[in-house]
Amino acid sequence: MKSNRLEKVINLMKKENLEQMIISDSASIFYLTGKWIHPGERMLALYLNAKGKNKLFVNKLFPINEDLGLEIVYFDDTDDEIKILADNIEKDKSLGIDKIWPSRFLIGLMNLNAASSYVNSSLIVDRVRMIKDEEEKELMRRASKLNDMAMEKLKEEVSKGYSEKELSDVLRGIYKEIEADGFSFSPIIAFGANGANPHHSNTDKVAQIGDSIILDIGCVKDSYCSDMTRTVFLKEASEKSKEVFDIVLEANKRAINEVKPGARFCDIDKAARDYIESKGYGEYFTHRTGHSIGIEVHDHGDVSAVNEDVLEAGMIFSIEPGIYLPGEIGVRIEDLVLVTEDGCEVLNRANKEMCII
Amino acid sequence: MKSNRLEKVINLMKKENLEQMIISDSASIFYLTGKWIHPGERMLALYLNAKGKNKLFVNKLFPINEDLGLEIVYFDDTDDEIKILADNIEKDKSLGIDKIWPSRFLIGLMNLNAASSYVNSSLIVDRVRMIKDEEEKELMRRASKLNDMAMEKLKEEVSKGYSEKELSDVLRGIYKEIEADGFSFSPIIAFGANGANPHHSNTDKVAQIGDSIILDIGCVKDSYCSDMTRTVFLKEASEKSKEVFDIVLEANKRAINEVKPGARFCDIDKAARDYIESKGYGEYFTHRTGHSIGIEVHDHGDVSAVNEDVLEAGMIFSIEPGIYLPGEIGVRIEDLVLVTEDGCEVLNRANKEMCII
Repeated sequence: MKSNRLEKVINLMKKENLEQMIISDSASIFYLTGKWIHPGERMLALYLNAKGKNKLFVNKLFPINEDLGLEIVYFDDTDDEIKILADNIEKDKSLGIDKIWPSRFLIGLMNLNAASSYVNSSLIVDRVRMIKDEEEKELMRRASKLNDMAMEKLKEEVSKGYSEKELSDVLRGIYKEIEADGFSFSPIIAFGANGANPHHSNTDKVAQIGDSIILDIGCVKDSYCSDMTRTVFLKEASEKSKEVFDIVLEANKRAINEVKPGARFCDIDKAARDYIESKGYGEYFTHRTGHSIGIEVHDHGDVSAVNEDVLEAGMIFSIEPGIYLPGEIGVRIEDLVLVTEDGCEVLNRANKEMCII
Repeated sequence: MKSNRLEKVINLMKKENLEQMIISDSASIFYLTGKWIHPGERMLALYLNAKGKNKLFVNKLFPINEDLGLEIVYFDDTDDEIKILADNIEKDKSLGIDKIWPSRFLIGLMNLNAASSYVNSSLIVDRVRMIKDEEEKELMRRASKLNDMAMEKLKEEVSKGYSEKELSDVLRGIYKEIEADGFSFSPIIAFGANGANPHHSNTDKVAQIGDSIILDIGCVKDSYCSDMTRTVFLKEASEKSKEVFDIVLEANKRAINEVKPGARFCDIDKAARDYIESKGYGEYFTHRTGHSIGIEVHDHGDVSAVNEDVLEAGMIFSIEPGIYLPGEIGVRIEDLVLVTEDGCEVLNRANKEMCII
């Protein structure tokens, strides 16, 4: 176990009066133990008890050779793994449950009356994970540095006539070449009107002159994620494209400018959203301004209008306003920021000014 | 909605006296509606009511342009989507829940007293999905035919000095070339002692003379999965390797021979396991004999010692016995079988006899 991180989690459990909880998220288990376990549909549960009786329940198919500093309880495919887990839970107390734990396990525990009540306790781990320690900050800088390199190389390929899908394959090769560990998410490469869907799936479309080209890309390096979006234009850009681009860029900069300890996530969202609304494009900015990021590309903590949580030094999240004009273009510009003692450090350095390729 | 499939689900709900249920699994929603929706961490819920008031709850970020033949309820990131869903549930009745639904949604509904009780109702959809209709059988045959082609091409590359990871990249290219839609799972390519871990993650290891080479590969084609394992040997095979190979192959054939309507999954497992045990390797066959497959590479229905469910025509599952000798070799031979009226059709045709490359 990474004892410092575990200690923070246990302290938060005590503060919230929660004596026991289950963590099932592979990323959180990696965060606390340094070990990745990917059990697929099989049960994986790290049981934490504020008194220190921590146990990891894992299928024998995923043997752990390292000393993780905690008891490991193995089961196999013919065991009743939910019963084994239930027998280790204090039945007269409330049990914290991981937000992502598949319901079949929770319903199984409920049927066995394994605890007195069940609460979503993910926030306890999520809040600890939100504040990156020095080791993590450095890993995040390295992942973003690789992403900067990849973006520069990718831009050189944009005008070579590749389809969206082909350009994604090119990017895979670039990440391999610069020794990233692969995509942190399936890249969104969207030409022209395709970019008007913020969650576009890449197609066989080839870019046309004047198209906006959204490059929303990220890699993993040593288990930490990068994520960045740049929008460029092929050969030329219409006046409207330039207008929209300038608005999005200014919204991105205004939001970044608000980042400091004490500000709230919703304040950051508001800075970008108010500016886009003031320019008459409010209805075309259809998503939240950003999301936290770390071991997972979407960590807990939205940069949205409804998140009033207060920023603290050590948090890392994206700022990615966009304007999406159905049937026409899409523009999104995204950077990652690390909250510092008195402002923020922008992790991405790739040029984000208007660029016609 | 695919009305025939929906009708089967509703009929099973009535038979089980369940009046309402939530399906959240993207694969099941695709199965019933023909539409893939991948909402990431956001809520996606298909609410089915035996009286026919079916509604799909989906985030506005994933707009549905097709007519799915059911009411669509949109929400956005600032809405309380669990409350919106709860308001549409009959509070005085039990509610079926999808086994994979993240616990945070279920706990959210429980906190709102959205139903009188909660049961894991996935089996209702899973049982319908287990029996493939004619359209699905044909899609499964096509995916396995592509996998046969890929295996033959991959075998030609095995002796060229690639590492496990590189061979996996070669396979990606092969699938692309033959117009498969990508991996159905991350291929397991394991050389020598690496093959002794059935869930091995590919490494930079290069095969040595005499190594067993496990090739556990599958592709997706038109949303249906293939999955096949062949084990070959590089340049030569020891007597022990040959002995182990022959045992695994015979176990594979004996299990296939038992497949027919009326047999139980555990009977199929027993046929393979008994033979391997009779040869003294029982303790080295450390996993279930197989798994169902379809839209997902692991569909519901294990071929294991504890599954007494009875086989019915239209089911498709893998038969993949193996022997794993730590520090030495691993051998696994896997085929997919379709249960027919009087036996089974083996979907994979690639040569599975002893092969020294």
